[in-house]
Amino acid sequence: MQKVNISLVAFDADDTLWDNEPKYKKAEKFFVEILSKYVDEKVISDELLKTEIQNLPICGYGTKSFCMSMMETAMRITDFRISTKELSKIYDLAKSLLKHPVEVYEGVAETLEYMAKKYPLALITKGDTLEQERKLLGSGLMAKFDFIEIVNEKDEKTYSDLIRKFRVQPSNFLMIGNSPKSDILPVLKIGGNAVYIPSAELWTHESTDEAKFNSFGSCYRKIDKIRDLMTLTI
Amino acid sequence: MQKVNISLVAFDADDTLWDNEPKYKKAEKFFVEILSKYVDEKVISDELLKTEIQNLPICGYGTKSFCMSMMETAMRITDFRISTKELSKIYDLAKSLLKHPVEVYEGVAETLEYMAKKYPLALITKGDTLEQERKLLGSGLMAKFDFIEIVNEKDEKTYSDLIRKFRVQPSNFLMIGNSPKSDILPVLKIGGNAVYIPSAELWTHESTDEAKFNSFGSCYRKIDKIRDLMTLTI
Repeated sequence: MQKVNISLVAFDADDTLWDNEPKYKKAEKFFVEILSKYVDEKVISDELLKTEIQNLPICGYGTKSFCMSMMETAMRITDFRISTKELSKIYDLAKSLLKHPVEVYEGVAETLEYMAKKYPLALITKGDTLEQERKLLGSGLMAKFDFIEIVNEKDEKTYSDLIRKFRVQPSNFLMIGNSPKSDILPVLKIGGNAVYIPSAELWTHESTDEAKFNSFGSCYRKIDKIRDLMTLTI
Repeated sequence: MQKVNISLVAFDADDTLWDNEPKYKKAEKFFVEILSKYVDEKVISDELLKTEIQNLPICGYGTKSFCMSMMETAMRITDFRISTKELSKIYDLAKSLLKHPVEVYEGVAETLEYMAKKYPLALITKGDTLEQERKLLGSGLMAKFDFIEIVNEKDEKTYSDLIRKFRVQPSNFLMIGNSPKSDILPVLKIGGNAVYIPSAELWTHESTDEAKFNSFGSCYRKIDKIRDLMTLTI
């Protein structure tokens, strides 16, 4: 990548640097299994997503919110027929995600090292402060970043505020992530640059139509794996 | 208060600027009522506190953690005999705390206005980012502060890091709050100044022996109400 225009490179964390969504999907699968004896299997995931989205404005992102939404959905959609013992299994499963070891993707450490030699690096992630700090600490990647920002939402306003804080112009800012909705579109919209690295799993609420990115020309790139950053020209 | 030595004044939020702990105590009373038909009433609050403290390292502070700890305690201490319907009542009660309107204490707005004319003001609070931001927004006090810091823990390290970030010497820093353990002792220990305003209710986990503060001489003051800051000399 050319240094010429970029003065700050920011990375998303979950499912960009380390594995995250598959753990939630696995938990959701178990959740569906437990509830399927009470409710039509097809509606369970939809009901969970509905609860999660409803709770977002007051609960925010992260595992504690996920735990609350699972408990709430289980009680509501079984009309309280689910047993306390079954509820406790769901609770334990959700809570265990808070202690799950962080599995950093292959190539991340060396790519960050390479990029850090050329640009100041920031990490910009949504979620719960304590939880994201714990993952960052567990990842061994903390020292690679000059700035760490844990925010409630990643929209155009968030990025505008952040780059103002970092004293960077949009055209000199590059964001790298796996979520079209949170990492790519809002950055392109404010005049920044974005590199999209699709992840194996994406939370339904984070999906958006990729086709619209192509109109942003050279400000937008899609790569297969994080290592490709080392040979990318933007 | 004399301007001479103080170059940054920081306030705690919950139970210093607005009412918080009484809402939790009220929820806990309801929790004890529901569980008392299963378990000896005397042990219920102790068991809840035990769960909360155990969960702190992975769940942190805030209402979502409180909700999880209540659900977990209810299931455990009733040996899963509590009904799903009763659990849902506990869940709804805890969740309702997330939407509770903020009740700012009398005298807070004018005191902050008075202090803001003399010093840069910071707000330093523990808890969940989204939740504390919501309360701050609801309080109408946001614009009074030059810096807002939401942290996981308020210990000596937290304060040392913060005042370094603000480029302030400990002896020029004044912290004001209701928690001996989180607002007063660590600040005095790093050589700062602290004003203690006892609140009507204090979470058991936040209590500490007040007597030890007196050895810090003029760096420590205790006042009855926030308005007293306007006539205080430190």
